[in-house]
Amino acid sequence: MNYRQQSLIKHGEWKGKIETVCRVPVDGKDNLSLAYTPGVAEPCMAIHNDVDKSFELTRRWNTVPVITDGTAVLGLGDIGPEAGMPVMEGKCALFKAFGDVDAYPLCLRTKDTEEIINTVKLLAGSFGGINLEDISAPRCFEIETRLKAELDIPVFHDDQHGTAIVMCAALINALKLVGKDKADIKIAMNGAGAAGIAIAEFLLRFGVKDIVICDTRGVIYEGRDGLNDAKRKIAKLTNRSKIKGSLADAMRGADVFIGVSVPNCVTKDMVRSMNDKPILFTCSNPVPEILPDEAKAAGAYIVGTGSSEYNNQINNVLVFPGLFRGALDVRARTVNDEMMTAAAHGIASCVPDAELSVDRILPLAYDKRAHECVAKAVAEAAVRSGVSKLK
Amino acid sequence: MNYRQQSLIKHGEWKGKIETVCRVPVDGKDNLSLAYTPGVAEPCMAIHNDVDKSFELTRRWNTVPVITDGTAVLGLGDIGPEAGMPVMEGKCALFKAFGDVDAYPLCLRTKDTEEIINTVKLLAGSFGGINLEDISAPRCFEIETRLKAELDIPVFHDDQHGTAIVMCAALINALKLVGKDKADIKIAMNGAGAAGIAIAEFLLRFGVKDIVICDTRGVIYEGRDGLNDAKRKIAKLTNRSKIKGSLADAMRGADVFIGVSVPNCVTKDMVRSMNDKPILFTCSNPVPEILPDEAKAAGAYIVGTGSSEYNNQINNVLVFPGLFRGALDVRARTVNDEMMTAAAHGIASCVPDAELSVDRILPLAYDKRAHECVAKAVAEAAVRSGVSKLK
Repeated sequence: MNYRQQSLIKHGEWKGKIETVCRVPVDGKDNLSLAYTPGVAEPCMAIHNDVDKSFELTRRWNTVPVITDGTAVLGLGDIGPEAGMPVMEGKCALFKAFGDVDAYPLCLRTKDTEEIINTVKLLAGSFGGINLEDISAPRCFEIETRLKAELDIPVFHDDQHGTAIVMCAALINALKLVGKDKADIKIAMNGAGAAGIAIAEFLLRFGVKDIVICDTRGVIYEGRDGLNDAKRKIAKLTNRSKIKGSLADAMRGADVFIGVSVPNCVTKDMVRSMNDKPILFTCSNPVPEILPDEAKAAGAYIVGTGSSEYNNQINNVLVFPGLFRGALDVRARTVNDEMMTAAAHGIASCVPDAELSVDRILPLAYDKRAHECVAKAVAEAAVRSGVSKLK
Repeated sequence: MNYRQQSLIKHGEWKGKIETVCRVPVDGKDNLSLAYTPGVAEPCMAIHNDVDKSFELTRRWNTVPVITDGTAVLGLGDIGPEAGMPVMEGKCALFKAFGDVDAYPLCLRTKDTEEIINTVKLLAGSFGGINLEDISAPRCFEIETRLKAELDIPVFHDDQHGTAIVMCAALINALKLVGKDKADIKIAMNGAGAAGIAIAEFLLRFGVKDIVICDTRGVIYEGRDGLNDAKRKIAKLTNRSKIKGSLADAMRGADVFIGVSVPNCVTKDMVRSMNDKPILFTCSNPVPEILPDEAKAAGAYIVGTGSSEYNNQINNVLVFPGLFRGALDVRARTVNDEMMTAAAHGIASCVPDAELSVDRILPLAYDKRAHECVAKAVAEAAVRSGVSKLK
């Protein structure tokens, strides 16, 4: 029986992967009078007089909703809000287990950009941060951008930035192993959805100079037909030699392939056409762009995938628990580049150089030290970059 | 130090009265692959194919948001969404402690009726039921009515119906002690907000014939000035002898006074003007309409208040945990009159006749047997009245 079949049975037994618990005594008159009426009137009025006190007198400081509209769940696509719940609950479980963050899954029955933005804004007073999840591109870009501008708590679309951060961490360590410099490499990428665009932007800021991205119609270049706003923007920043053609053309001579696209779109010949010691991060889930064994047979030097079934799992579970832990700990008012870059370096640093190998470029997803390391790095970066609201 | 001062200190120490916990193992590759990717794809697709499965494969079946706009928090009024959070968190803590329901507090940054209705509808796919809380009248009436009509999960505005149910339970037992019949008594009521209107409607359905309600302008009668829709509707059903005047006029000769209004509005003379063996339920919070000692000194036979500081606390904490427990257990698609009446009788039956006294007409708020009794009565009534969706 495979993971998917077993998982269905387990979910039926679990009947929920998270639950709420009561942290205070409520038995007896005195306890009830302190946790509830009449005593509770006093913390209410303290917050009424200074809204900031909601971070001290309630659980707001540690609470983050995992919000989706169910339009881009895993590689399953637009399966609807209720069907997205097992993933959202899973994220909430991981938020707690690895970041000690109290997360609630909220699956919205709308795909309307304005309605999603408005709903999150209406809810924001209950939370210390907002995790957007599995919202399809290009709507996710505007939703996150607008919410970041309008809210003074961290807003983070994990599919974009969580993926970008962990990909960057994988790249940092892979480049050490092949002895190449980020400024000299050529990256070919397949997939220009939420994750693809965010990865490209992140790696450009990180210092990579040459990235060529493909979508379903092939190489993206400035002026090409069928580009949405996000692709038009990224076309101005990538593919500066303005090559045209297919994924095969993009991969020829590339040092790194990054796939956030569809299963089995990369052939052995494409791998063979890459530069010396090729690195392949094939993150289509659950089936990668090319199976690791095939890639290796065709000469791949380092292979990472999105799945826990192979070595080098490149999964954003390494990012979001620690990133929010760090942001909440210092009451960051946003998630900025400094914090995200710190998270990438934090993850990479969890594998000491002595332990680094082609089969071990990242810490394991359930390595608690890695999450603590990310939290610490993010909190420090938030303070350093001036976005902590702690007094 | 009083409860309010102590409570403020406690809330600062607690830093939240609820938290989320992870119910499943997530350490190691196998566990992570079952609770999260790649395994989780299978329960997602099972729900995509049959949305009803979200009640079996996720925590939806046991999860209820406590939703407020912060406009009518305790007796504190419109203090804003963030300031309402300590009460909402408290309710969530009680939901868990007494009903084993997983509740999340959601405090909305809007007072707009349509926006609140729409937000709850967008969120409904994540929940097994909806608890509306501390939303001011008259908006709360339309919000609840519309949501009940449009959603197929239980929607319950606790300030209306929770209060009405526990008041009815108190009345059932108090009438036993004074030897009067519900069909023969006259009730004077002060307060025509959410709770007042709901209590009047509930008691009329229960079989009380003669209720006179006052608002801040005195007795409500058909055709009076300054009546909103809800008051106009209740004016057609109450005060059939069409008396006019003040609260003092309403209370003259009454068997029962019900206060859901403001502190200290009832005088000893008003109590003295009531019928033989007067019953007073003075539920203004935290200070009642008349202090129990004063009421007793003026001849009150039975006194109940909203506070845990006196005997006979008439608090809806006796209602909501058990009511939702029962409704969720049988997947009720709504909360109907049968279920609410069953809850009232369930609460009343928790004090055996032999233990009934003027100082003990209700079970204690933290009596777990009482909550179990309510849950059982509500579940049975839901099945009996045909609103259970269990197959």
